[in-house]
Amino acid sequence: VVRPPAPSGEKVIGVLGGMGPEATLAFYEKLIANTPAARDQDHLRVVIDSNPKVPDRTAALLGLGRSPLPLMVAGMEALARAGADFVVIPCVSAHGFLDDLRRQARLPLLSALDAMADHLRQHHPRITKVGLLATSGTIDSGAFPATLERAGVQVLVPDAAGQARVMAAIYAIKRTVGGARGALGEDLRRVAERLVALGAQGIVLGCTEIPLVLGGDGLGVPVFDVVRVLARASIAAAGRVPVVEGA
Amino acid sequence: VVRPPAPSGEKVIGVLGGMGPEATLAFYEKLIANTPAARDQDHLRVVIDSNPKVPDRTAALLGLGRSPLPLMVAGMEALARAGADFVVIPCVSAHGFLDDLRRQARLPLLSALDAMADHLRQHHPRITKVGLLATSGTIDSGAFPATLERAGVQVLVPDAAGQARVMAAIYAIKRTVGGARGALGEDLRRVAERLVALGAQGIVLGCTEIPLVLGGDGLGVPVFDVVRVLARASIAAAGRVPVVEGA
Repeated sequence: VVRPPAPSGEKVIGVLGGMGPEATLAFYEKLIANTPAARDQDHLRVVIDSNPKVPDRTAALLGLGRSPLPLMVAGMEALARAGADFVVIPCVSAHGFLDDLRRQARLPLLSALDAMADHLRQHHPRITKVGLLATSGTIDSGAFPATLERAGVQVLVPDAAGQARVMAAIYAIKRTVGGARGALGEDLRRVAERLVALGAQGIVLGCTEIPLVLGGDGLGVPVFDVVRVLARASIAAAGRVPVVEGA
Repeated sequence: VVRPPAPSGEKVIGVLGGMGPEATLAFYEKLIANTPAARDQDHLRVVIDSNPKVPDRTAALLGLGRSPLPLMVAGMEALARAGADFVVIPCVSAHGFLDDLRRQARLPLLSALDAMADHLRQHHPRITKVGLLATSGTIDSGAFPATLERAGVQVLVPDAAGQARVMAAIYAIKRTVGGARGALGEDLRRVAERLVALGAQGIVLGCTEIPLVLGGDGLGVPVFDVVRVLARASIAAAGRVPVVEGA
Protein backbone atom coordinates (compact mmCIF):
# COMPACT_ATOMS: atom_id res chain seq x y z
CA VAL A 1 0.00 0.00 0.00
CA VAL A 2 1.41 3.38 -1.06
CA ARG A 3 0.49 5.97 1.51
CA PRO A 4 0.00 9.63 0.64
CA PRO A 5 2.94 11.42 2.21
CA ALA A 6 2.59 13.11 5.58
CA PRO A 7 5.03 15.88 6.43
CA SER A 8 7.85 14.65 8.59
CA GLY A 9 7.11 14.59 12.29
CA GLU A 10 3.33 14.58 11.97
CA LYS A 11 1.17 11.49 12.20
CA VAL A 12 -2.10 10.90 10.40
CA ILE A 13 -5.06 10.62 12.77
CA GLY A 14 -7.58 7.88 12.02
CA VAL A 15 -11.10 8.39 13.36
CA LEU A 16 -13.34 5.36 13.75
CA GLY A 17 -16.54 7.38 13.66
CA GLY A 18 -20.25 7.47 13.06
CA MET A 19 -21.13 6.28 16.56
CA GLY A 20 -23.04 8.58 16.32
CA PRO A 21 -22.24 10.79 13.34
CA GLU A 22 -22.89 13.99 15.22
CA ALA A 23 -20.42 13.07 17.95
CA THR A 24 -17.83 12.44 15.22
CA LEU A 25 -18.67 15.84 13.75
CA ALA A 26 -18.14 17.47 17.17
CA PHE A 27 -14.83 15.62 17.55
CA TYR A 28 -13.63 16.78 14.12
CA GLU A 29 -14.70 20.34 14.96
CA LYS A 30 -12.71 20.29 18.21
CA LEU A 31 -9.73 18.76 16.44
CA ILE A 32 -9.69 21.69 14.00
CA ALA A 33 -10.36 24.32 16.67
CA ASN A 34 -7.58 23.01 18.94
CA THR A 35 -4.90 22.86 16.21
CA PRO A 36 -2.75 26.01 15.95
CA ALA A 37 -3.10 27.09 12.31
CA ALA A 38 -3.02 30.22 10.18
CA ARG A 39 -3.76 28.50 6.85
CA ASP A 40 -5.11 25.18 5.59
CA GLN A 41 -1.68 23.57 5.38
CA ASP A 42 -1.01 24.06 9.12
CA HIS A 43 -3.79 21.60 9.99
CA LEU A 44 -3.30 17.87 10.53
CA ARG A 45 -4.27 15.17 8.08
CA VAL A 46 -7.24 13.23 9.45
CA VAL A 47 -8.94 10.19 7.95
CA ILE A 48 -12.48 9.52 9.17
CA ASP A 49 -14.53 6.38 8.62
CA SER A 50 -17.98 7.47 9.71
CA ASN A 51 -19.91 4.21 9.73
CA PRO A 52 -23.24 4.65 11.53
CA LYS A 53 -24.21 1.09 10.56
CA VAL A 54 -22.16 -0.27 13.48
CA PRO A 55 -24.69 -1.94 15.81
CA ASP A 56 -25.66 -0.12 19.01
CA ARG A 57 -22.80 -0.39 21.51
CA THR A 58 -24.86 -0.13 24.68
CA ALA A 59 -27.32 -2.81 23.54
CA ALA A 60 -24.39 -5.17 22.89
CA LEU A 61 -22.66 -4.39 26.20
CA LEU A 62 -25.92 -5.13 28.03
CA GLY A 63 -26.23 -8.42 26.13
CA LEU A 64 -29.29 -7.21 24.23
CA GLY A 65 -27.94 -6.79 20.70
CA ARG A 66 -25.42 -8.02 18.21
CA SER A 67 -21.76 -7.18 18.55
CA PRO A 68 -20.38 -4.03 16.91
CA LEU A 69 -16.91 -5.61 16.90
CA PRO A 70 -16.73 -6.99 13.32
CA LEU A 71 -17.67 -3.66 11.72
CA MET A 72 -15.35 -1.78 14.07
CA VAL A 73 -12.44 -4.04 13.12
CA ALA A 74 -13.33 -3.59 9.42
CA GLY A 75 -13.37 0.18 9.98
CA MET A 76 -9.93 0.10 11.58
CA GLU A 77 -8.60 -1.85 8.60
CA ALA A 78 -10.17 0.71 6.25
CA LEU A 79 -8.41 3.49 8.16
CA ALA A 80 -5.10 1.64 7.96
CA ARG A 81 -5.49 1.24 4.20
CA ALA A 82 -6.29 4.95 3.86
CA GLY A 83 -3.04 5.89 5.61
CA ALA A 84 -3.92 6.46 9.28
CA ASP A 85 -1.04 6.00 11.75
CA PHE A 86 -3.21 5.57 14.85
CA VAL A 87 -6.91 5.49 15.64
CA VAL A 88 -9.26 7.23 18.03
CA ILE A 89 -12.94 6.44 18.58
CA PRO A 90 -15.26 9.34 19.43
CA CYS A 91 -17.72 6.97 21.11
CA VAL A 92 -17.05 6.12 24.73
CA SER A 93 -19.35 3.09 24.79
CA ALA A 94 -17.30 1.56 21.96
CA HIS A 95 -14.39 1.50 24.39
CA GLY A 96 -16.12 -1.44 26.07
CA PHE A 97 -14.66 -3.43 23.16
CA LEU A 98 -11.18 -1.91 23.36
CA ASP A 99 -9.31 -5.08 24.38
CA ASP A 100 -10.85 -7.07 21.53
CA LEU A 101 -10.15 -4.25 19.08
CA ARG A 102 -6.52 -4.08 20.14
CA ARG A 103 -6.18 -7.83 19.65
CA GLN A 104 -7.82 -7.86 16.21
CA ALA A 105 -6.64 -4.63 14.53
CA ARG A 106 -3.13 -3.64 13.54
CA LEU A 107 -3.17 0.12 14.17
CA PRO A 108 -2.52 1.52 17.66
CA LEU A 109 -5.58 2.89 19.47
CA LEU A 110 -5.55 6.04 21.61
CA SER A 111 -8.12 5.42 24.34
CA ALA A 112 -10.55 8.21 25.28
CA LEU A 113 -10.64 6.75 28.79
CA ASP A 114 -6.86 7.07 29.17
CA ALA A 115 -6.99 10.57 27.66
CA MET A 116 -9.53 11.63 30.32
CA ALA A 117 -7.55 10.04 33.16
CA ASP A 118 -4.36 11.80 31.97
CA HIS A 119 -6.21 15.10 31.64
CA LEU A 120 -7.54 14.94 35.20
CA ARG A 121 -4.18 13.93 36.65
CA GLN A 122 -2.25 16.65 34.80
CA HIS A 123 -4.65 19.59 34.96
CA HIS A 124 -6.81 18.88 38.03
CA PRO A 125 -4.63 16.94 40.46
CA ARG A 126 -6.73 18.04 43.46
CA ILE A 127 -9.88 16.40 42.19
CA THR A 128 -10.38 13.03 43.87
CA LYS A 129 -14.04 12.38 43.11
CA VAL A 130 -16.00 12.94 39.89
CA GLY A 131 -19.52 12.25 38.69
CA LEU A 132 -19.74 10.24 35.48
CA LEU A 133 -22.48 10.80 32.92
CA ALA A 134 -22.26 7.99 30.38
CA THR A 135 -24.29 5.29 28.68
CA SER A 136 -25.48 2.32 30.69
CA GLY A 137 -23.22 0.21 28.49
CA THR A 138 -20.16 2.21 29.55
CA ILE A 139 -21.09 2.09 33.20
CA ASP A 140 -21.91 -1.64 33.14
CA SER A 141 -18.71 -2.56 31.32
CA GLY A 142 -16.80 -0.83 34.10
CA ALA A 143 -13.77 0.17 32.05
CA PHE A 144 -14.21 3.94 32.37
CA PRO A 145 -14.70 3.98 36.17
CA ALA A 146 -11.77 1.56 36.54
CA THR A 147 -9.48 3.75 34.40
CA LEU A 148 -10.30 6.86 36.40
CA GLU A 149 -9.92 5.02 39.70
CA ARG A 150 -6.48 3.75 38.68
CA ALA A 151 -5.62 7.45 38.19
CA GLY A 152 -6.67 8.15 41.79
CA VAL A 153 -10.12 9.54 41.03
CA GLN A 154 -13.20 8.01 42.65
CA VAL A 155 -16.27 7.77 40.42
CA LEU A 156 -19.89 8.47 41.34
CA VAL A 157 -22.57 7.26 38.94
CA PRO A 158 -26.29 8.15 38.90
CA ASP A 159 -28.82 5.92 40.66
CA ALA A 160 -31.05 3.70 38.50
CA ALA A 161 -33.67 6.41 37.92
CA GLY A 162 -31.02 9.01 37.09
CA GLN A 163 -29.22 6.61 34.75
CA ALA A 164 -32.48 5.86 32.95
CA ARG A 165 -32.86 9.61 32.34
CA VAL A 166 -29.30 9.85 31.00
CA MET A 167 -29.90 6.96 28.62
CA ALA A 168 -33.23 8.39 27.43
CA ALA A 169 -31.53 11.74 26.79
CA ILE A 170 -28.71 10.14 24.75
CA TYR A 171 -31.09 8.28 22.44
CA ALA A 172 -33.21 11.45 22.12
CA ILE A 173 -30.10 13.42 21.07
CA LYS A 174 -29.42 10.86 18.33
CA ARG A 175 -33.04 11.25 17.16
CA THR A 176 -33.14 15.06 17.03
CA VAL A 177 -30.30 16.10 14.74
CA GLY A 178 -30.66 19.86 14.39
CA GLY A 179 -33.90 19.81 16.39
CA ALA A 180 -35.09 21.10 19.75
CA ARG A 181 -32.88 19.88 22.55
CA GLY A 182 -33.15 22.36 25.41
CA ALA A 183 -35.13 19.99 27.61
CA LEU A 184 -32.57 17.21 27.14
CA GLY A 185 -29.77 19.40 28.48
CA GLU A 186 -31.97 20.27 31.48
CA ASP A 187 -32.61 16.60 32.20
CA LEU A 188 -28.91 15.83 32.17
CA ARG A 189 -28.13 18.90 34.27
CA ARG A 190 -30.45 17.69 37.03
CA VAL A 191 -28.70 14.31 37.13
CA ALA A 192 -25.33 16.09 37.28
CA GLU A 193 -26.52 18.37 40.09
CA ARG A 194 -27.48 15.32 42.12
CA LEU A 195 -23.94 13.92 41.71
CA VAL A 196 -22.46 17.27 42.79
CA ALA A 197 -24.71 17.21 45.85
CA LEU A 198 -23.28 13.76 46.65
CA GLY A 199 -19.72 15.11 46.60
CA ALA A 200 -18.56 15.10 42.98
CA GLN A 201 -15.86 17.78 42.51
CA GLY A 202 -16.26 17.65 38.75
CA ILE A 203 -18.52 16.08 36.13
CA VAL A 204 -17.13 13.90 33.38
CA LEU A 205 -19.26 14.12 30.23
CA GLY A 206 -18.41 10.53 29.42
CA CYS A 207 -20.52 9.91 26.35
CA THR A 208 -19.73 11.81 23.16
CA GLU A 209 -23.39 12.77 22.67
CA ILE A 210 -23.72 14.52 26.05
CA PRO A 211 -21.58 17.62 25.30
CA LEU A 212 -23.89 18.28 22.33
CA VAL A 213 -26.53 19.46 24.82
CA LEU A 214 -24.87 20.01 28.23
CA GLY A 215 -22.32 22.74 28.92
CA GLY A 216 -20.81 23.42 32.32
CA ASP A 217 -22.50 26.70 33.23
CA GLY A 218 -24.02 26.94 36.66
CA LEU A 219 -23.02 23.52 38.00
CA GLY A 220 -20.45 25.08 40.32
CA VAL A 221 -17.85 22.42 39.50
CA PRO A 222 -15.72 21.94 36.37
CA VAL A 223 -17.09 19.83 33.55
CA PHE A 224 -14.80 17.58 31.51
CA ASP A 225 -15.87 17.05 27.92
CA VAL A 226 -14.52 13.71 26.67
CA VAL A 227 -14.80 14.88 23.04
CA ARG A 228 -12.59 17.92 23.63
CA VAL A 229 -10.13 15.99 25.82
CA LEU A 230 -9.80 13.25 23.19
CA ALA A 231 -9.35 15.85 20.41
CA ARG A 232 -6.50 17.54 22.29
CA ALA A 233 -4.87 14.20 23.12
CA SER A 234 -5.10 13.24 19.42
CA ILE A 235 -3.36 16.45 18.33
CA ALA A 236 -0.56 15.75 20.83
CA ALA A 237 -0.29 12.12 19.68
CA ALA A 238 0.01 13.36 16.08
CA GLY A 239 3.05 15.37 17.09
CA ARG A 240 1.62 18.85 17.57
CA VAL A 241 1.01 21.05 20.59
CA PRO A 242 -2.71 21.91 20.93
CA VAL A 243 -3.75 25.56 21.31
CA VAL A 244 -3.33 26.93 24.84
CA GLU A 245 -5.92 25.51 27.27
CA GLY A 246 -8.70 27.99 27.94
CA ALA A 247 -7.62 30.26 25.06
CA VAL B 1 -9.36 -5.38 -0.86
CA VAL B 2 -12.18 -6.55 1.42
CA ARG B 3 -14.66 -3.73 1.89
CA PRO B 4 -16.71 -3.30 5.04
CA PRO B 5 -20.26 -4.15 4.03
CA ALA B 6 -22.70 -1.37 3.18
CA PRO B 7 -26.39 -2.17 3.44
CA SER B 8 -27.87 -2.99 0.06
CA GLY B 9 -28.98 -0.02 -1.95
CA GLU B 10 -26.77 2.55 -0.21
CA LYS B 11 -23.43 3.75 -1.52
CA VAL B 12 -20.49 4.86 0.59
CA ILE B 13 -19.68 8.56 0.13
CA GLY B 14 -15.99 9.45 -0.15
CA VAL B 15 -15.03 13.00 0.79
CA LEU B 16 -11.75 14.40 -0.52
CA GLY B 17 -11.48 17.02 2.18
CA GLY B 18 -9.30 19.35 4.16
CA MET B 19 -9.39 22.12 1.53
CA GLY B 20 -9.93 23.72 3.99
CA PRO B 21 -10.77 21.54 6.98
CA GLU B 22 -13.55 23.81 8.17
CA ALA B 23 -15.34 23.64 4.82
CA THR B 24 -15.15 19.84 5.06
CA LEU B 25 -16.58 20.06 8.58
CA ALA B 26 -19.48 22.19 7.26
CA PHE B 27 -20.06 19.68 4.45
CA TYR B 28 -20.14 16.75 6.88
CA GLU B 29 -22.54 18.70 9.13
CA LYS B 30 -24.90 19.37 6.22
CA LEU B 31 -24.65 15.75 5.11
CA ILE B 32 -25.81 14.62 8.56
CA ALA B 33 -28.49 17.32 8.88
CA ASN B 34 -29.97 16.54 5.44
CA THR B 35 -30.17 12.75 5.95
CA PRO B 36 -33.51 11.54 7.30
CA ALA B 37 -32.63 9.58 10.45
CA ALA B 38 -34.11 8.66 13.81
CA ARG B 39 -31.06 6.73 15.09
CA ASP B 40 -27.36 6.33 14.25
CA GLN B 41 -27.95 3.39 11.91
CA ASP B 42 -30.22 5.45 9.61
CA HIS B 43 -27.28 7.64 8.58
CA LEU B 44 -25.02 7.00 5.59
CA ARG B 45 -21.50 5.64 5.75
CA VAL B 46 -19.05 8.41 4.83
CA VAL B 47 -15.27 8.16 4.48
CA ILE B 48 -13.38 11.44 4.73
CA ASP B 49 -9.75 12.07 3.87
CA SER B 50 -9.14 15.51 5.33
CA ASN B 51 -5.71 16.39 3.97
CA PRO B 52 -4.98 20.08 4.49
CA LYS B 53 -1.44 19.56 3.18
CA VAL B 54 -2.76 19.73 -0.41
CA PRO B 55 -1.13 22.84 -1.94
CA ASP B 56 -3.28 25.97 -2.34
CA ARG B 57 -5.65 25.47 -5.28
CA THR B 58 -6.05 29.11 -6.26
CA ALA B 59 -2.29 29.72 -6.29
CA ALA B 60 -1.86 26.74 -8.64
CA LEU B 61 -4.73 27.78 -10.93
CA LEU B 62 -3.20 31.24 -11.22
CA GLY B 63 0.19 29.67 -12.06
CA LEU B 64 1.72 30.87 -8.80
CA GLY B 65 2.16 27.63 -6.86
CA ARG B 66 2.72 23.94 -7.14
CA SER B 67 -0.02 21.61 -8.32
CA PRO B 68 -2.39 20.06 -5.79
CA LEU B 69 -3.10 17.23 -8.25
CA PRO B 70 -0.70 14.52 -6.99
CA LEU B 71 -1.97 14.72 -3.39
CA MET B 72 -5.57 14.87 -4.58
CA VAL B 73 -5.08 11.73 -6.68
CA ALA B 74 -3.41 10.03 -3.69
CA GLY B 75 -6.39 11.05 -1.54
CA MET B 76 -8.84 9.57 -4.03
CA GLU B 77 -6.89 6.31 -3.98
CA ALA B 78 -6.95 6.35 -0.17
CA LEU B 79 -10.74 6.79 -0.26
CA ALA B 80 -11.05 3.91 -2.73
CA ARG B 81 -8.99 1.65 -0.47
CA ALA B 82 -11.15 2.65 2.50
CA GLY B 83 -14.32 1.56 0.69
CA ALA B 84 -15.79 4.71 -0.88
CA ASP B 85 -18.03 4.15 -3.93
CA PHE B 86 -17.83 7.71 -5.27
CA VAL B 87 -16.10 10.93 -4.29
CA VAL B 88 -17.10 14.52 -3.67
CA ILE B 89 -14.77 17.45 -3.02
CA PRO B 90 -16.01 20.21 -0.69
CA CYS B 91 -13.63 22.72 -2.28
CA VAL B 92 -14.87 24.45 -5.41
CA SER B 93 -11.41 25.67 -6.49
CA ALA B 94 -10.23 22.05 -6.55
CA HIS B 95 -12.77 21.49 -9.33
CA GLY B 96 -10.37 23.39 -11.60
CA PHE B 97 -8.49 20.06 -11.68
CA LEU B 98 -11.57 17.89 -12.25
CA ASP B 99 -10.66 16.67 -15.75
CA ASP B 100 -7.19 15.58 -14.63
CA LEU B 101 -8.63 13.93 -11.52
CA ARG B 102 -11.14 12.01 -13.58
CA ARG B 103 -8.38 10.80 -15.89
CA GLN B 104 -6.05 9.72 -13.07
CA ALA B 105 -8.36 8.31 -10.38
CA ARG B 106 -10.55 5.24 -10.54
CA LEU B 107 -13.56 6.33 -8.44
CA PRO B 108 -16.39 8.37 -10.00
CA LEU B 109 -16.49 12.03 -8.96
CA LEU B 110 -19.71 13.94 -8.25
CA SER B 111 -19.00 17.53 -9.31
CA ALA B 112 -20.12 20.39 -7.07
CA LEU B 113 -20.45 22.53 -10.19
CA ASP B 114 -22.88 20.06 -11.78
CA ALA B 115 -24.75 19.76 -8.48
CA MET B 116 -25.27 23.54 -8.39
CA ALA B 117 -26.34 23.69 -12.06
CA ASP B 118 -28.85 20.85 -11.47
CA HIS B 119 -30.13 22.55 -8.32
CA LEU B 120 -30.79 25.84 -10.12
CA ARG B 121 -32.45 24.15 -13.09
CA GLN B 122 -34.70 21.98 -10.93
CA HIS B 123 -35.64 24.33 -8.12
CA HIS B 124 -35.23 27.82 -9.61
CA PRO B 125 -36.00 27.50 -13.33
CA ARG B 126 -36.93 31.19 -13.64
CA ILE B 127 -33.50 32.40 -12.61
CA THR B 128 -31.47 33.33 -15.68
CA LYS B 129 -28.69 35.39 -14.11
CA VAL B 130 -26.71 34.80 -10.89
CA GLY B 131 -23.82 36.48 -9.14
CA LEU B 132 -20.90 34.19 -8.34
CA LEU B 133 -18.78 34.61 -5.23
CA ALA B 134 -15.78 32.31 -5.57
CA THR B 135 -11.99 32.24 -5.44
CA SER B 136 -10.00 33.93 -8.18
CA GLY B 137 -8.76 30.46 -9.11
CA THR B 138 -12.31 29.25 -9.70
CA ILE B 139 -13.23 32.32 -11.73
CA ASP B 140 -10.03 32.25 -13.80
CA SER B 141 -10.32 28.55 -14.56
CA GLY B 142 -13.76 29.27 -15.96
CA ALA B 143 -15.29 25.86 -15.28
CA PHE B 144 -17.97 27.03 -12.80
CA PRO B 145 -19.29 29.90 -14.98
CA ALA B 146 -19.24 27.58 -18.02
CA THR B 147 -21.19 24.87 -16.17
CA LEU B 148 -23.87 27.32 -15.06
CA GLU B 149 -24.08 28.89 -18.51
CA ARG B 150 -24.59 25.49 -20.11
CA ALA B 151 -27.56 25.15 -17.74
CA GLY B 152 -29.00 28.40 -19.11
CA VAL B 153 -27.86 30.67 -16.28
CA GLN B 154 -25.74 33.74 -17.02
CA VAL B 155 -22.99 34.47 -14.51
CA LEU B 156 -21.94 37.85 -13.13
CA VAL B 157 -18.62 38.06 -11.29
CA PRO B 158 -17.24 40.91 -9.17
CA ASP B 159 -14.98 43.54 -10.70
CA ALA B 160 -11.26 43.38 -9.87
CA ALA B 161 -11.58 45.38 -6.65
CA GLY B 162 -14.58 43.32 -5.50
CA GLN B 163 -12.83 40.06 -6.37
CA ALA B 164 -9.77 41.14 -4.36
CA ARG B 165 -12.07 41.65 -1.35
CA VAL B 166 -13.61 38.21 -1.83
CA MET B 167 -10.18 36.57 -1.97
CA ALA B 168 -8.94 38.49 1.07
CA ALA B 169 -12.03 37.38 2.99
CA ILE B 170 -11.55 33.71 2.05
CA TYR B 171 -7.94 33.62 3.28
CA ALA B 172 -8.99 35.49 6.42
CA ILE B 173 -11.68 32.87 7.10
CA LYS B 174 -9.03 30.14 6.87
CA ARG B 175 -6.88 32.07 9.36
CA THR B 176 -9.57 32.72 11.98
CA VAL B 177 -10.92 29.30 12.94
CA GLY B 178 -13.32 29.97 15.79
CA GLY B 179 -12.35 33.65 15.79
CA ALA B 180 -14.11 36.95 15.05
CA ARG B 181 -15.56 36.98 11.57
CA GLY B 182 -18.40 39.50 11.51
CA ALA B 183 -16.48 41.99 9.38
CA LEU B 184 -15.65 39.31 6.80
CA GLY B 185 -19.31 38.52 6.25
CA GLU B 186 -20.01 42.25 5.83
CA ASP B 187 -17.26 42.57 3.20
CA LEU B 188 -18.70 39.69 1.21
CA ARG B 189 -22.23 41.02 1.58
CA ARG B 190 -21.25 44.34 0.01
CA VAL B 191 -19.73 42.54 -3.00
CA ALA B 192 -22.92 40.45 -3.31
CA GLU B 193 -25.12 43.57 -3.09
CA ARG B 194 -23.22 45.10 -5.99
CA LEU B 195 -23.92 41.99 -8.11
CA VAL B 196 -27.61 42.18 -7.19
CA ALA B 197 -27.62 45.86 -8.24
CA LEU B 198 -26.19 44.73 -11.60
CA GLY B 199 -29.07 42.32 -12.16
CA ALA B 200 -28.20 39.09 -10.35
CA GLN B 201 -31.43 37.25 -9.44
CA GLY B 202 -29.56 35.04 -6.97
CA ILE B 203 -26.11 34.72 -5.42
CA VAL B 204 -24.12 31.50 -5.69
CA LEU B 205 -21.84 31.04 -2.68
CA GLY B 206 -19.32 29.28 -4.90
CA CYS B 207 -16.47 28.71 -2.48
CA THR B 208 -16.97 26.35 0.44
CA GLU B 209 -15.49 28.88 2.89
CA ILE B 210 -18.00 31.65 2.06
CA PRO B 211 -21.11 30.10 3.69
CA LEU B 212 -19.11 29.95 6.94
CA VAL B 213 -19.59 33.73 7.25
CA LEU B 214 -22.30 34.84 4.79
CA GLY B 215 -25.97 33.89 5.10
CA GLY B 216 -28.68 35.13 2.77
CA ASP B 217 -30.56 37.53 5.04
CA GLY B 218 -31.35 40.95 3.66
CA LEU B 219 -29.93 40.50 0.17
CA GLY B 220 -33.42 40.41 -1.33
CA VAL B 221 -32.53 37.49 -3.64
CA PRO B 222 -32.03 33.81 -2.87
CA VAL B 223 -28.58 32.59 -1.91
CA PHE B 224 -27.31 29.19 -3.06
CA ASP B 225 -24.85 27.52 -0.71
CA VAL B 226 -22.61 25.15 -2.67
CA VAL B 227 -21.82 23.16 0.49
CA ARG B 228 -25.48 22.44 1.20
CA VAL B 229 -26.30 21.75 -2.46
CA LEU B 230 -23.38 19.31 -2.73
CA ALA B 231 -24.37 17.59 0.54
CA ARG B 232 -27.92 17.02 -0.71
CA ALA B 233 -26.69 15.81 -4.11
CA SER B 234 -24.33 13.38 -2.33
CA ILE B 235 -27.17 11.94 -0.24
CA ALA B 236 -29.19 11.41 -3.42
CA ALA B 237 -26.20 9.84 -5.20
CA ALA B 238 -25.78 7.46 -2.24
CA GLY B 239 -29.32 6.24 -2.81
CA ARG B 240 -31.31 8.19 -0.23
CA VAL B 241 -33.84 10.99 -0.43
CA PRO B 242 -32.60 14.09 1.45
CA VAL B 243 -34.89 15.71 4.04
CA VAL B 244 -37.57 17.94 2.57
CA GLU B 245 -36.13 21.20 1.16
CA GLY B 246 -36.77 24.11 3.52
CA ALA B 247 -37.87 21.81 6.37
